[in-house]
Amino acid sequence: MTEAAALPSPAFLDDLHVGQRFVSGSHKLTAEAIKAFAGEYDPQPFHTDERAAEDSFFAGLAASGWHVAAVTMKLLVGDGAFIANGLIGAGGEIAWPRPTRPGDVLTVESEVIDVAPSRSRPDRGMVTVRSETRNQRGEIVQVLTAKLVAPRRVPAAI
Amino acid sequence: MTEAAALPSPAFLDDLHVGQRFVSGSHKLTAEAIKAFAGEYDPQPFHTDERAAEDSFFAGLAASGWHVAAVTMKLLVGDGAFIANGLIGAGGEIAWPRPTRPGDVLTVESEVIDVAPSRSRPDRGMVTVRSETRNQRGEIVQVLTAKLVAPRRVPAAI
Repeated sequence: MTEAAALPSPAFLDDLHVGQRFVSGSHKLTAEAIKAFAGEYDPQPFHTDERAAEDSFFAGLAASGWHVAAVTMKLLVGDGAFIANGLIGAGGEIAWPRPTRPGDVLTVESEVIDVAPSRSRPDRGMVTVRSETRNQRGEIVQVLTAKLVAPRRVPAAI
Repeated sequence: MTEAAALPSPAFLDDLHVGQRFVSGSHKLTAEAIKAFAGEYDPQPFHTDERAAEDSFFAGLAASGWHVAAVTMKLLVGDGAFIANGLIGAGGEIAWPRPTRPGDVLTVESEVIDVAPSRSRPDRGMVTVRSETRNQRGEIVQVLTAKLVAPRRVPAAI
């Protein structure tokens, strides 16, 4: 991950603030990878067979949204998670506004949109990160708003 | 997929209604599968290394949330999607309330919670399905509320 501003790496909750941005490396999705992932986890014709995909909703082979999510995670983890205990998601919202196609090169741009110390657990908190996954034309193929568990640098006094 | 009530298979938007429920088959997650998925898409020590995982937030090897999501999709697709054009997700909300462990056997219980014909496209609509993924003890390991594109049986008159 490359961050726009200097950030201790890996970061504690106390190092994070709203507006921090990160840009990932990139990953190219091949037709073979799309079909292999779908064959194991999302075996629908528009993800596994070019010919059948032509007549589908997608009008051509498209990656499973869960494959896009998995590749996004790979890019977010990158050479090392940007949070000290790793990227541990409690959940979030996900949307796939357009299909991902064979040959697409994906990059993830992330922004911290909320930092919330836990009220009950002084050693941790929750960071909300919005991650846009874009293809090589800059088109957004996935938006993920994830809530991540982050440790505190020094347990807060109560 | 096994449905509690009779449902034309595959179904159009017109065949779906709030309260319909589906139960999937089951899938066992092995330590090898957890580590293989994580090695490719979520290479963090608590997903890839039993020893390192002991000292982590998870206190033991845990599956990547995206692996749980992918297996959930596999179970939802099952022997055939329950919607006529396939299971095409526009997006949704996802949460992982507890970790999935090696040896866990996952099953998905789904319920239709909204059916909305499109106002602009008379040939389709959106179905919202809440899917709970449970382990062999009945504990919920993932909740996914997904918006799925569904075709209409007969285009509506405007």
